[in-house]
Amino acid sequence: MHGSPDNLRRLSLAARAPGLDANALAAIATLSPDLELLERQRAHELGALSIAPETIGYFRCPDESLIAADLRWLENGDCTVLPSTSPDYPRLLRGSPNAPPVLFVRGAVTALGEPQIAMVGSRSATAGGLATARRFAANFARMGLAITSGLALGIDAASHEGALEAGGVTIAVLGHGLDTIYPRQHRALATRIAASGALVSEFPPGTPPLPANFPQRNRIIAGLAHGTVVVEAAQDSGSLITARLAGVAGREVFAVPGSILNPMVRGCHELIRQGAKLVEGVEDVLTELKISLSTQLLADAAGPTADSGKPGGPLDKEYKILLDALAFEPASVDSLIDRTGMNSESIASMLLILELDGHVAPHPGGRYSRMAGK
Amino acid sequence: MHGSPDNLRRLSLAARAPGLDANALAAIATLSPDLELLERQRAHELGALSIAPETIGYFRCPDESLIAADLRWLENGDCTVLPSTSPDYPRLLRGSPNAPPVLFVRGAVTALGEPQIAMVGSRSATAGGLATARRFAANFARMGLAITSGLALGIDAASHEGALEAGGVTIAVLGHGLDTIYPRQHRALATRIAASGALVSEFPPGTPPLPANFPQRNRIIAGLAHGTVVVEAAQDSGSLITARLAGVAGREVFAVPGSILNPMVRGCHELIRQGAKLVEGVEDVLTELKISLSTQLLADAAGPTADSGKPGGPLDKEYKILLDALAFEPASVDSLIDRTGMNSESIASMLLILELDGHVAPHPGGRYSRMAGK
Repeated sequence: MHGSPDNLRRLSLAARAPGLDANALAAIATLSPDLELLERQRAHELGALSIAPETIGYFRCPDESLIAADLRWLENGDCTVLPSTSPDYPRLLRGSPNAPPVLFVRGAVTALGEPQIAMVGSRSATAGGLATARRFAANFARMGLAITSGLALGIDAASHEGALEAGGVTIAVLGHGLDTIYPRQHRALATRIAASGALVSEFPPGTPPLPANFPQRNRIIAGLAHGTVVVEAAQDSGSLITARLAGVAGREVFAVPGSILNPMVRGCHELIRQGAKLVEGVEDVLTELKISLSTQLLADAAGPTADSGKPGGPLDKEYKILLDALAFEPASVDSLIDRTGMNSESIASMLLILELDGHVAPHPGGRYSRMAGK
Repeated sequence: MHGSPDNLRRLSLAARAPGLDANALAAIATLSPDLELLERQRAHELGALSIAPETIGYFRCPDESLIAADLRWLENGDCTVLPSTSPDYPRLLRGSPNAPPVLFVRGAVTALGEPQIAMVGSRSATAGGLATARRFAANFARMGLAITSGLALGIDAASHEGALEAGGVTIAVLGHGLDTIYPRQHRALATRIAASGALVSEFPPGTPPLPANFPQRNRIIAGLAHGTVVVEAAQDSGSLITARLAGVAGREVFAVPGSILNPMVRGCHELIRQGAKLVEGVEDVLTELKISLSTQLLADAAGPTADSGKPGGPLDKEYKILLDALAFEPASVDSLIDRTGMNSESIASMLLILELDGHVAPHPGGRYSRMAGK
């Protein structure tokens, strides 16, 4: 995903411009597909797009040394910058409020296209909470779901590790530049995550882990995932922010209950009182998610053909095409794209539902086969 | 509450007649206040009241030896039979579906007029569950709430004991005649309960503890109480029936969550998923109950004067009268009845709300005083 030096330079400009979001970048790209309008000599033309004066001000006088540093970081083999205008930019995140204009990625950009479950919780979780996070993450991974979390101590780390131990994909969203890892003791874990999954940040290289960055980072965790599971969270913890952001983004929020004598589950109980789904195991999450995904896909499918009087029709047809394209020999998503002409996002979502329904089986390496007898 | 031998004989007839509920008994009492229509020579007149033929059949040919046994049981000093037509019959139970026509009571009939919380749960609860039940019951009792349960092993017994240890009132509703106690190991507990509270059954003396009686008994537990708290319950347990009956009767259902590794809380989690309120402590129950009681009393008060355009008016006025009748010296409910002319049920409900609002303080012996500064 490495573009021309000019292109990378402009993505660095977009990432560092204050007050620019994914929608604004999309508007700019409509007018100027190569983003040349972001360069200082043409930035004054952005006024026509209702871009804020302070944003335009930045483009007129950017810090060239920081841009050079970003370009140097991008020279690392596994480092990428992904604009919101790219077809690889995760669709769910793109549809969430205040999506970042640019994502810095270390690892596999394709991991961001996987259907994801966010798992978050307390930094000072109990041993029981950590075991639950690890078990849930491993079970989700075995179902073909990627685990998205924040690489923090406690529940976050246990969730990433559970996914890795099950041979699954996991994504860590960080509240700082990807040139460092915070907390430092998770550097080895970060390397393991980047090997099959991805480290992601909206913050350019060199951004320190400022406390203010973390609630902002949480909206990306929530935005990437179909649902967010809170495992152990004290009252007024950061995990509750992530859960609320997931709710705001229209995603499902799940909370694991616990003993009323354990103060580390107060936040989970509060979420349940506020309407989060109580979950005892991954099956509960998958059941809810299946309903939610079906509704969502039905709505997507019904959108352009709402007047056909047969809302299930277009959906069923796409599923049939996908099932026909699947063989009993495992096939990769790429080969399914070739066979069906559908995009990877649609295929990933439909595969998840077909898998939950027992029509397809997942295989190592992100391949899928049709189940015998279906 | 002992009536004439004729009257007691007719209550025994009513209790033993198949298919007779509180509404049917009330209809009969309207026509024949002394219930003489229940006697064999006049039973044919009941046809005019849409009483079922099998019920009338019983009255025409009752088992006189069983009636004699009931009358002998009623000769015990603390044994009473309470018809649904009595002003002492608990108002909430009277308003619940399929209320029994007659209650047999051992202990203090006045206990049935106290505002009650039902606490139910597993017979094979964990040590943690038993401790929670005991603590919740003691805290409710200290707030002036009576604890209603079923005298079963496990959560039921712990709830009764918690209330007794805090010097509170507790009510055990049994699924058999009050001439025996089941399980046998709770005979001493039953005696302690009857000393300040009451044992209650719709089943006449001599009725054995048949399994079919217990779900029926559960509706009385749910019907007596403002809300039902389920502490530990496995999936598909009898406690869930009580909770569902509480919901059907329009009462609040509360469930205490627990570790997902504890199979004894699965039922509680299921209830929460179905809409029961998750509670971590008695404060959570009282907060909900206060809202629910306020709404209920407001609705009661607004009923006859709905067109006054000032729904809160009549309620506020009654509260003011009650507060004015309260002194800083503790007063009994009986003396408040004398002072205000209101009935004991209204006074008990209003005292509960005033207490939750911090306007009145409870004292031993069911007395209340006004709080200084209010």
